Amino acid sequence: MNSMEKPKLEVCLSPALLHLYDTKGSVVVIIDIFRATSTITAALHNGAACVVPVATVARCIELGSTIEGSITAGERDGRVAEGLQHGNSPLEYPADFVKGKKLILTTTNGTRLLHMVEDADTIVIGSFLNLRAVCAYLINRGKNVLLGCASWKDRVNLEDTLFAGAVVQEIGASFDINCDSARAARVLYERASSEGLIEFLSDSSHYRRLSAFGLVHDMEYCVSLDLHPVVPVLYGDEIQVFHP
Amino acid sequence: MNSMEKPKLEVCLSPALLHLYDTKGSVVVIIDIFRATSTITAALHNGAACVVPVATVARCIELGSTIEGSITAGERDGRVAEGLQHGNSPLEYPADFVKGKKLILTTTNGTRLLHMVEDADTIVIGSFLNLRAVCAYLINRGKNVLLGCASWKDRVNLEDTLFAGAVVQEIGASFDINCDSARAARVLYERASSEGLIEFLSDSSHYRRLSAFGLVHDMEYCVSLDLHPVVPVLYGDEIQVFHP
Repeated sequence: MNSMEKPKLEVCLSPALLHLYDTKGSVVVIIDIFRATSTITAALHNGAACVVPVATVARCIELGSTIEGSITAGERDGRVAEGLQHGNSPLEYPADFVKGKKLILTTTNGTRLLHMVEDADTIVIGSFLNLRAVCAYLINRGKNVLLGCASWKDRVNLEDTLFAGAVVQEIGASFDINCDSARAARVLYERASSEGLIEFLSDSSHYRRLSAFGLVHDMEYCVSLDLHPVVPVLYGDEIQVFHP
Repeated sequence: MNSMEKPKLEVCLSPALLHLYDTKGSVVVIIDIFRATSTITAALHNGAACVVPVATVARCIELGSTIEGSITAGERDGRVAEGLQHGNSPLEYPADFVKGKKLILTTTNGTRLLHMVEDADTIVIGSFLNLRAVCAYLINRGKNVLLGCASWKDRVNLEDTLFAGAVVQEIGASFDINCDSARAARVLYERASSEGLIEFLSDSSHYRRLSAFGLVHDMEYCVSLDLHPVVPVLYGDEIQVFHP
Protein backbone atom coordinates (compact mmCIF):
# COMPACT_ATOMS: atom_id res chain seq x y z
CA MET A 1 0.00 0.00 0.00
CA ASN A 2 1.32 3.38 -1.02
CA SER A 3 1.59 5.93 1.81
CA MET A 4 -0.81 8.24 -0.01
CA GLU A 5 -3.52 5.62 0.40
CA LYS A 6 -3.15 5.27 4.13
CA PRO A 7 -5.57 7.08 6.39
CA LYS A 8 -4.20 10.03 8.34
CA LEU A 9 -3.31 9.95 12.01
CA GLU A 10 -2.92 13.18 13.95
CA VAL A 11 -2.51 14.16 17.59
CA CYS A 12 -4.19 17.18 19.18
CA LEU A 13 -2.41 18.04 22.43
CA SER A 14 -5.10 20.31 23.89
CA PRO A 15 -8.80 21.10 23.29
CA ALA A 16 -7.65 24.69 22.66
CA LEU A 17 -5.98 23.42 19.48
CA LEU A 18 -8.92 21.36 18.27
CA HIS A 19 -10.02 23.93 15.67
CA LEU A 20 -6.84 23.14 13.72
CA TYR A 21 -8.00 19.60 13.01
CA ASP A 22 -10.73 18.20 10.86
CA THR A 23 -12.72 15.88 13.09
CA LYS A 24 -15.59 15.39 10.64
CA GLY A 25 -15.59 11.83 9.37
CA SER A 26 -12.68 10.83 11.61
CA VAL A 27 -12.46 8.44 14.48
CA VAL A 28 -11.60 10.59 17.47
CA VAL A 29 -10.00 8.98 20.50
CA ILE A 30 -10.64 10.90 23.72
CA ILE A 31 -7.70 10.66 26.12
CA ASP A 32 -7.94 11.67 29.77
CA ILE A 33 -5.58 9.26 31.49
CA PHE A 34 -5.84 10.83 34.99
CA ARG A 35 -8.57 9.66 35.23
CA ALA A 36 -11.82 9.92 33.29
CA THR A 37 -11.05 7.67 30.34
CA SER A 38 -9.31 5.14 32.58
CA THR A 39 -12.36 5.01 34.83
CA ILE A 40 -14.80 4.68 31.91
CA THR A 41 -12.74 1.83 30.46
CA ALA A 42 -12.55 -0.03 33.77
CA ALA A 43 -16.26 0.41 34.59
CA LEU A 44 -17.38 -0.87 31.20
CA HIS A 45 -15.02 -3.84 31.26
CA ASN A 46 -16.32 -4.65 34.72
CA GLY A 47 -19.84 -4.85 33.33
CA ALA A 48 -21.42 -1.40 33.64
CA ALA A 49 -24.31 -1.14 31.19
CA CYS A 50 -23.05 2.23 30.02
CA VAL A 51 -21.36 5.43 31.10
CA VAL A 52 -23.22 8.70 30.59
CA PRO A 53 -20.72 11.57 30.46
CA VAL A 54 -22.12 14.93 31.60
CA ALA A 55 -20.55 18.33 31.92
CA THR A 56 -21.83 19.49 35.31
CA VAL A 57 -22.50 18.19 38.79
CA ALA A 58 -26.07 19.54 38.58
CA ARG A 59 -26.79 17.57 35.41
CA CYS A 60 -25.24 14.48 37.01
CA ILE A 61 -27.59 14.74 40.02
CA GLU A 62 -30.58 15.38 37.73
CA LEU A 63 -29.93 12.32 35.55
CA GLY A 64 -29.14 10.16 38.56
CA SER A 65 -32.56 10.90 40.04
CA THR A 66 -34.39 9.90 36.85
CA ILE A 67 -32.45 6.87 35.60
CA GLU A 68 -33.11 3.69 37.51
CA GLY A 69 -30.06 1.63 38.47
CA SER A 70 -27.74 4.55 38.00
CA ILE A 71 -24.69 5.67 39.95
CA THR A 72 -23.67 9.30 40.02
CA ALA A 73 -19.97 10.00 40.07
CA GLY A 74 -17.53 12.83 39.77
CA GLU A 75 -14.86 14.73 41.62
CA ARG A 76 -13.88 18.30 42.03
CA ASP A 77 -10.46 19.03 43.49
CA GLY A 78 -9.78 15.38 44.23
CA ARG A 79 -12.95 14.68 46.27
CA VAL A 80 -16.37 13.29 45.48
CA ALA A 81 -18.35 16.32 44.36
CA GLU A 82 -21.13 17.44 46.69
CA GLY A 83 -24.40 15.69 45.86
CA LEU A 84 -22.74 12.77 44.01
CA GLN A 85 -22.26 9.24 45.28
CA HIS A 86 -18.87 8.19 43.98
CA GLY A 87 -15.54 9.43 42.75
CA ASN A 88 -13.46 9.31 39.61
CA SER A 89 -11.21 6.35 40.31
CA PRO A 90 -11.08 3.22 38.14
CA LEU A 91 -10.64 1.27 41.38
CA GLU A 92 -14.08 2.28 42.67
CA TYR A 93 -15.93 0.27 40.06
CA PRO A 94 -15.29 -3.46 40.50
CA ALA A 95 -17.66 -5.92 38.80
CA ASP A 96 -19.62 -6.79 41.93
CA PHE A 97 -20.53 -3.13 42.33
CA VAL A 98 -20.93 -1.79 38.82
CA LYS A 99 -22.32 -4.73 36.84
CA GLY A 100 -25.47 -3.80 34.93
CA LYS A 101 -25.53 -0.25 36.26
CA LYS A 102 -25.46 3.05 34.42
CA LEU A 103 -22.62 5.26 35.55
CA ILE A 104 -23.45 8.97 35.25
CA LEU A 105 -20.02 10.60 35.27
CA THR A 106 -19.00 14.23 35.31
CA THR A 107 -15.36 15.16 34.78
CA THR A 108 -13.61 18.46 34.29
CA ASN A 109 -11.68 17.94 31.08
CA GLY A 110 -12.66 14.70 29.37
CA THR A 111 -16.38 15.38 29.12
CA ARG A 112 -15.82 18.83 27.68
CA LEU A 113 -13.59 17.53 24.89
CA LEU A 114 -16.08 14.79 24.10
CA HIS A 115 -18.79 17.35 23.45
CA MET A 116 -16.42 19.38 21.27
CA VAL A 117 -15.99 16.61 18.70
CA GLU A 118 -19.60 15.71 18.06
CA ASP A 119 -19.17 15.82 14.27
CA ALA A 120 -16.71 12.91 14.38
CA ASP A 121 -17.59 9.64 12.68
CA THR A 122 -17.01 7.79 15.94
CA ILE A 123 -15.87 8.84 19.39
CA VAL A 124 -13.79 6.26 21.23
CA ILE A 125 -12.45 6.25 24.78
CA GLY A 126 -8.74 5.51 25.08
CA SER A 127 -6.54 4.73 28.07
CA PHE A 128 -3.52 2.60 28.86
CA LEU A 129 -6.00 0.10 30.31
CA ASN A 130 -7.32 -0.62 26.80
CA LEU A 131 -4.41 0.49 24.60
CA ARG A 132 -4.19 -2.57 22.38
CA ALA A 133 -7.94 -2.99 22.06
CA VAL A 134 -8.23 0.61 20.86
CA CYS A 135 -5.30 0.17 18.48
CA ALA A 136 -6.83 -2.96 16.95
CA TYR A 137 -10.12 -1.11 16.56
CA LEU A 138 -8.46 1.84 14.81
CA ILE A 139 -6.68 -0.46 12.40
CA ASN A 140 -9.90 -2.31 11.61
CA ARG A 141 -11.86 0.87 10.98
CA GLY A 142 -9.29 2.15 8.47
CA LYS A 143 -10.46 5.75 8.82
CA ASN A 144 -8.60 8.95 9.60
CA VAL A 145 -7.78 9.12 13.29
CA LEU A 146 -7.44 12.05 15.64
CA LEU A 147 -5.99 11.33 19.06
CA GLY A 148 -7.48 14.05 21.27
CA CYS A 149 -5.79 14.80 24.57
CA ALA A 150 -8.19 16.21 27.14
CA SER A 151 -5.23 17.91 28.86
CA TRP A 152 -5.66 19.88 32.08
CA LYS A 153 -7.72 23.02 31.63
CA ASP A 154 -6.29 23.25 28.11
CA ARG A 155 -2.70 22.92 29.28
CA VAL A 156 -0.75 20.21 27.50
CA ASN A 157 -0.02 17.37 29.89
CA LEU A 158 2.46 14.55 29.80
CA GLU A 159 0.22 11.58 30.58
CA ASP A 160 -2.30 12.17 27.78
CA THR A 161 0.55 12.92 25.38
CA LEU A 162 2.25 9.66 26.37
CA PHE A 163 -0.84 7.65 25.56
CA ALA A 164 -1.03 9.30 22.14
CA GLY A 165 2.62 8.37 21.68
CA ALA A 166 1.90 4.76 22.64
CA VAL A 167 -0.76 4.56 19.92
CA VAL A 168 1.59 6.10 17.37
CA GLN A 169 4.30 3.61 18.30
CA GLU A 170 1.87 0.69 18.11
CA ILE A 171 0.05 1.44 14.84
CA GLY A 172 1.67 4.52 13.30
CA ALA A 173 3.10 2.49 10.41
CA SER A 174 -0.43 1.83 9.14
CA PHE A 175 -1.19 5.55 8.89
CA ASP A 176 0.07 8.58 7.05
CA ILE A 177 1.54 10.84 9.74
CA ASN A 178 2.46 14.42 8.97
CA CYS A 179 1.98 15.87 12.41
CA ASP A 180 4.79 17.04 14.68
CA SER A 181 2.67 16.46 17.78
CA ALA A 182 2.43 12.78 16.84
CA ARG A 183 6.18 12.59 16.33
CA ALA A 184 6.85 14.33 19.64
CA ALA A 185 4.38 12.10 21.48
CA ARG A 186 6.05 8.99 20.14
CA VAL A 187 9.53 10.12 21.20
CA LEU A 188 8.20 10.94 24.67
CA TYR A 189 6.56 7.53 24.95
CA GLU A 190 9.73 5.77 23.88
CA ARG A 191 11.63 7.54 26.63
CA ALA A 192 8.90 6.99 29.22
CA SER A 193 8.47 3.30 28.47
CA SER A 194 12.19 2.75 28.82
CA GLU A 195 12.17 4.55 32.20
CA GLY A 196 8.84 3.20 33.41
CA LEU A 197 5.71 5.26 32.84
CA ILE A 198 5.02 6.18 36.43
CA GLU A 199 8.66 7.05 37.09
CA PHE A 200 8.67 9.25 34.00
CA LEU A 201 5.48 10.95 35.12
CA SER A 202 6.53 11.43 38.72
CA ASP A 203 7.67 15.01 38.06
CA SER A 204 4.60 15.93 35.97
CA SER A 205 2.05 18.55 37.00
CA HIS A 206 -0.84 16.13 37.30
CA TYR A 207 1.17 13.58 39.28
CA ARG A 208 2.17 16.29 41.72
CA ARG A 209 -1.41 17.45 42.06
CA LEU A 210 -2.99 14.01 42.44
CA SER A 211 -0.30 12.60 44.71
CA ALA A 212 -1.10 15.46 47.11
CA PHE A 213 -4.62 13.96 47.23
CA GLY A 214 -3.17 10.52 48.06
CA LEU A 215 -3.86 9.11 44.60
CA VAL A 216 -0.52 7.55 43.69
CA HIS A 217 -1.97 4.05 43.59
CA ASP A 218 -4.74 5.29 41.31
CA MET A 219 -2.21 6.72 38.92
CA GLU A 220 -0.16 3.53 38.93
CA TYR A 221 -3.31 1.66 38.00
CA CYS A 222 -4.11 4.14 35.22
CA VAL A 223 -0.77 3.54 33.49
CA SER A 224 -1.09 -0.26 33.57
CA LEU A 225 -1.33 -1.71 30.08
CA ASP A 226 -4.30 -3.66 28.79
CA LEU A 227 -5.98 -4.62 32.05
CA HIS A 228 -9.41 -3.80 30.57
CA PRO A 229 -9.39 -4.74 26.88
CA VAL A 230 -12.67 -3.20 25.72
CA VAL A 231 -13.39 -0.42 23.23
CA PRO A 232 -15.82 2.13 24.71
CA VAL A 233 -17.69 4.02 22.00
CA LEU A 234 -20.14 6.91 22.29
CA TYR A 235 -23.63 5.95 21.05
CA GLY A 236 -25.94 8.93 21.36
CA ASP A 237 -25.54 10.08 24.95
CA GLU A 238 -24.14 6.81 26.24
CA ILE A 239 -20.72 5.26 26.13
CA GLN A 240 -21.03 1.52 25.68
CA VAL A 241 -18.69 -1.29 24.78
CA PHE A 242 -18.27 -1.33 20.98
CA HIS A 243 -20.78 -3.58 19.25
CA PRO A 244 -20.34 -3.91 15.46
CA MET B 1 18.00 29.43 47.42
CA ASN B 2 14.75 27.65 48.14
CA SER B 3 12.82 26.48 45.07
CA MET B 4 9.89 28.68 46.07
CA GLU B 5 12.08 31.71 45.56
CA LYS B 6 13.14 30.88 42.06
CA PRO B 7 11.40 32.62 39.17
CA LYS B 8 9.04 30.51 37.07
CA LEU B 9 9.88 29.13 33.67
CA GLU B 10 7.10 27.93 31.36
CA VAL B 11 6.81 26.85 27.75
CA CYS B 12 3.88 27.75 25.49
CA LEU B 13 3.86 25.40 22.49
CA SER B 14 1.50 27.45 20.29
CA PRO B 15 0.11 31.00 20.14
CA ALA B 16 -3.34 29.37 20.44
CA LEU B 17 -2.39 28.39 24.01
CA LEU B 18 -1.02 31.79 24.99
CA HIS B 19 -4.12 32.79 26.96
CA LEU B 20 -3.21 30.10 29.51
CA TYR B 21 -0.06 31.94 30.52
CA ASP B 22 0.55 35.14 32.35
CA THR B 23 2.89 37.15 30.18
CA LYS B 24 2.55 40.37 32.16
CA GLY B 25 5.80 41.16 33.91
CA SER B 26 7.57 38.19 32.37
CA VAL B 27 10.44 37.97 29.96
CA VAL B 28 8.96 36.32 26.86
CA VAL B 29 11.26 34.61 24.40
CA ILE B 30 9.84 34.45 20.89
CA ILE B 31 10.91 31.29 19.07
CA ASP B 32 10.50 30.83 15.32
CA ILE B 33 13.48 28.70 14.38
CA PHE B 34 12.51 28.20 10.71
CA ARG B 35 13.28 31.02 10.17
CA ALA B 36 12.24 34.43 11.49
CA THR B 37 14.04 34.47 14.82
CA SER B 38 17.15 32.87 13.30
CA THR B 39 17.22 35.56 10.62
CA ILE B 40 16.69 38.40 13.09
CA THR B 41 19.52 37.08 15.27
CA ALA B 42 21.91 36.74 12.34
CA ALA B 43 21.09 40.15 10.86
CA LEU B 44 21.61 41.96 14.16
CA HIS B 45 24.86 40.14 14.92
CA ASN B 46 26.04 41.08 11.45
CA GLY B 47 25.49 44.73 12.24
CA ALA B 48 21.95 45.63 11.18
CA ALA B 49 20.87 48.77 13.05
CA CYS B 50 17.58 47.13 13.92
CA VAL B 51 14.88 44.79 12.69
CA VAL B 52 11.34 46.10 12.43
CA PRO B 53 8.88 43.22 12.54
CA VAL B 54 5.61 43.86 10.72
CA ALA B 55 2.56 41.71 10.16
CA THR B 56 1.80 42.27 6.49
CA VAL B 57 3.57 42.65 3.17
CA ALA B 58 1.70 45.93 2.58
CA ARG B 59 3.00 47.41 5.84
CA CYS B 60 6.48 46.22 4.98
CA ILE B 61 6.40 48.04 1.63
CA GLU B 62 4.96 51.15 3.25
CA LEU B 63 7.66 51.35 5.93
CA GLY B 64 10.39 50.52 3.42
CA SER B 65 9.42 53.53 1.32
CA THR B 66 9.59 55.94 4.27
CA ILE B 67 12.62 54.73 6.26
CA GLU B 68 15.95 55.63 4.76
CA GLY B 69 18.54 52.89 4.61
CA SER B 70 15.97 50.18 5.03
CA ILE B 71 15.67 46.74 3.47
CA THR B 72 12.26 45.12 3.05
CA ALA B 73 12.12 41.39 3.53
CA GLY B 74 9.66 38.58 3.82
CA GLU B 75 8.52 35.38 2.18
CA ARG B 76 5.26 33.76 1.42
CA ASP B 77 5.28 30.08 0.46
CA GLY B 78 9.06 29.93 0.38
CA ARG B 79 9.63 32.85 -2.03
CA VAL B 80 10.36 36.55 -1.61
CA ALA B 81 6.92 38.13 -1.32
CA GLU B 82 5.84 40.32 -4.21
CA GLY B 83 6.91 43.93 -3.70
CA LEU B 84 9.68 43.07 -1.20
CA GLN B 85 13.42 43.01 -1.83
CA HIS B 86 14.71 40.06 0.15
CA GLY B 87 13.77 36.76 1.72
CA ASN B 88 13.67 35.23 5.16
CA SER B 89 16.99 33.42 5.27
CA PRO B 90 19.70 34.14 7.86
CA LEU B 91 22.21 33.57 5.04
CA GLU B 92 20.94 36.56 3.08
CA TYR B 93 22.19 39.08 5.61
CA PRO B 94 26.00 39.05 5.81
CA ALA B 95 27.76 42.00 7.43
CA ASP B 96 28.85 43.62 4.16
CA PHE B 97 25.23 43.83 3.09
CA VAL B 98 23.27 44.48 6.27
CA LYS B 99 25.61 46.63 8.36
CA GLY B 100 23.92 49.81 9.58
CA LYS B 101 20.68 49.09 7.77
CA LYS B 102 17.18 48.73 9.11
CA LEU B 103 15.61 45.42 8.17
CA ILE B 104 11.82 45.64 7.81
CA LEU B 105 10.73 42.01 8.12
CA THR B 106 7.35 40.40 7.71
CA THR B 107 6.87 36.78 8.72
CA THR B 108 3.83 34.58 9.00
CA ASN B 109 4.09 33.24 12.51
CA GLY B 110 6.82 34.97 14.51
CA THR B 111 5.58 38.54 14.02
CA ARG B 112 2.07 37.60 15.03
CA LEU B 113 3.18 36.05 18.31
CA LEU B 114 5.33 39.05 19.06
CA HIS B 115 2.34 41.35 18.86
CA MET B 116 0.34 39.01 21.10
CA VAL B 117 2.66 39.43 24.08
CA GLU B 118 2.91 43.19 24.21
CA ASP B 119 2.24 43.27 27.96
CA ALA B 120 5.44 41.37 28.69
CA ASP B 121 8.21 43.02 30.68
CA THR B 122 10.64 42.30 27.87
CA ILE B 123 10.38 40.51 24.54
CA VAL B 124 13.49 38.66 23.46
CA ILE B 125 14.28 36.84 20.22
CA GLY B 126 15.60 33.31 20.65
CA SER B 127 17.19 30.89 18.21
CA PHE B 128 19.84 28.19 18.27
CA LEU B 129 22.16 30.82 16.79
CA ASN B 130 22.08 32.74 20.09
CA LEU B 131 21.06 30.01 22.56
CA ARG B 132 23.69 30.63 25.21
CA ALA B 133 23.51 34.40 24.94
CA VAL B 134 19.75 34.24 25.55
CA CYS B 135 20.20 31.80 28.43
CA ALA B 136 22.76 34.04 30.11
CA TYR B 137 20.42 36.99 29.68
CA LEU B 138 17.49 35.12 31.24
CA ILE B 139 19.59 34.10 34.23
CA ASN B 140 20.80 37.67 34.72
CA ARG B 141 17.31 39.13 34.55
CA GLY B 142 16.01 36.76 37.23
CA LYS B 143 12.38 37.27 36.20
CA ASN B 144 9.66 34.80 35.28
CA VAL B 145 10.25 33.44 31.79
CA LEU B 146 7.82 32.29 29.14
CA LEU B 147 9.32 30.50 26.14
CA GLY B 148 6.82 31.18 23.36
CA CYS B 149 6.89 28.93 20.31
CA ALA B 150 5.60 30.68 17.20
CA SER B 151 4.65 27.27 15.77
CA TRP B 152 3.22 26.90 12.26
CA LYS B 153 -0.21 28.45 11.92
CA ASP B 154 -0.84 27.51 15.55
CA ARG B 155 0.20 23.88 15.07
CA VAL B 156 2.82 22.70 17.51
CA ASN B 157 6.10 22.13 15.70
CA LEU B 158 9.20 20.20 16.61
CA GLU B 159 11.90 22.77 15.88
CA ASP B 160 10.49 25.52 18.12
CA THR B 161 9.78 22.97 20.84
CA LEU B 162 13.37 21.71 20.63
CA PHE B 163 14.74 25.19 21.19
CA ALA B 164 12.53 25.58 24.25
CA GLY B 165 13.90 22.24 25.43
CA ALA B 166 17.47 23.41 24.91
CA VAL B 167 16.83 26.43 27.13
CA VAL B 168 15.23 24.23 29.81
CA GLN B 169 18.21 21.89 29.70
CA GLU B 170 20.66 24.77 29.91
CA ILE B 171 19.13 26.89 32.69
CA GLY B 172 16.10 25.00 34.02
CA ALA B 173 17.80 24.35 37.35
CA SER B 174 17.72 28.08 38.10
CA PHE B 175 13.95 28.25 37.69
CA ASP B 176 10.85 26.76 39.25
CA ILE B 177 9.33 24.57 36.56
CA ASN B 178 5.83 23.19 36.95
CA CYS B 179 4.93 22.93 33.29
CA ASP B 180 4.58 19.66 31.39
CA SER B 181 5.36 21.38 28.10
CA ALA B 182 8.74 22.39 29.49
CA ARG B 183 9.39 18.82 30.65
CA ALA B 184 8.34 17.41 27.28
CA ALA B 185 10.47 19.93 25.39
CA ARG B 186 13.52 19.01 27.42
CA VAL B 187 13.10 15.28 26.80
CA LEU B 188 12.68 15.95 23.08
CA TYR B 189 15.82 18.09 23.03
CA GLU B 190 17.81 15.44 24.86
CA ARG B 191 16.84 12.89 22.23
CA ALA B 192 17.39 15.29 19.34
CA SER B 193 20.80 16.44 20.51
CA SER B 194 21.95 12.84 20.86
CA GLU B 195 20.75 12.07 17.31
CA GLY B 196 21.78 15.37 15.76
CA LEU B 197 19.24 18.16 15.51
CA ILE B 198 18.84 18.17 11.76
CA GLU B 199 18.62 14.37 11.59
CA PHE B 200 15.96 14.43 14.30
CA LEU B 201 14.03 17.12 12.42
CA SER B 202 14.31 15.48 9.02
CA ASP B 203 10.88 13.86 9.35
CA SER B 204 9.20 17.00 10.74
CA SER B 205 6.45 18.91 8.95
CA HIS B 206 8.45 22.09 8.49
CA TYR B 207 11.55 20.26 7.27
CA ARG B 208 9.46 18.48 4.66
CA ARG B 209 7.86 21.73 3.56
CA LEU B 210 11.05 23.81 3.44
CA SER B 211 13.21 21.10 1.88
CA ALA B 212 10.71 21.05 -1.01
CA PHE B 213 11.68 24.72 -1.50
CA GLY B 214 15.39 23.78 -1.57
CA LEU B 215 16.07 25.18 1.89
CA VAL B 216 17.93 22.30 3.57
CA HIS B 217 21.14 24.32 3.92
CA ASP B 218 19.14 27.14 5.50
CA MET B 219 17.69 24.77 8.07
CA GLU B 220 21.11 23.31 8.86
CA TYR B 221 22.32 26.83 9.51
CA CYS B 222 19.33 27.60 11.73
CA VAL B 223 20.10 24.68 14.06
CA SER B 224 23.77 25.61 14.48
CA LEU B 225 24.56 26.60 18.05
CA ASP B 226 25.80 30.01 19.10
CA LEU B 227 27.06 31.35 15.77
CA HIS B 228 25.52 34.77 16.53
CA PRO B 229 25.81 35.43 20.27
CA VAL B 230 23.63 38.53 20.61
CA VAL B 231 20.40 39.11 22.54
CA PRO B 232 17.81 40.84 20.33
CA VAL B 233 15.24 42.74 22.39
CA LEU B 234 12.13 44.60 21.27
CA TYR B 235 12.34 48.33 22.04
CA GLY B 236 9.15 50.04 20.92
CA ASP B 237 8.70 48.94 17.32
CA GLU B 238 12.30 47.95 16.77
CA ILE B 239 14.30 44.89 17.66
CA GLN B 240 17.82 45.89 18.61
CA VAL B 241 20.74 44.21 20.28
CA PHE B 242 20.21 44.37 24.05
CA HIS B 243 21.74 47.44 25.67
CA PRO B 244 21.47 47.58 29.47
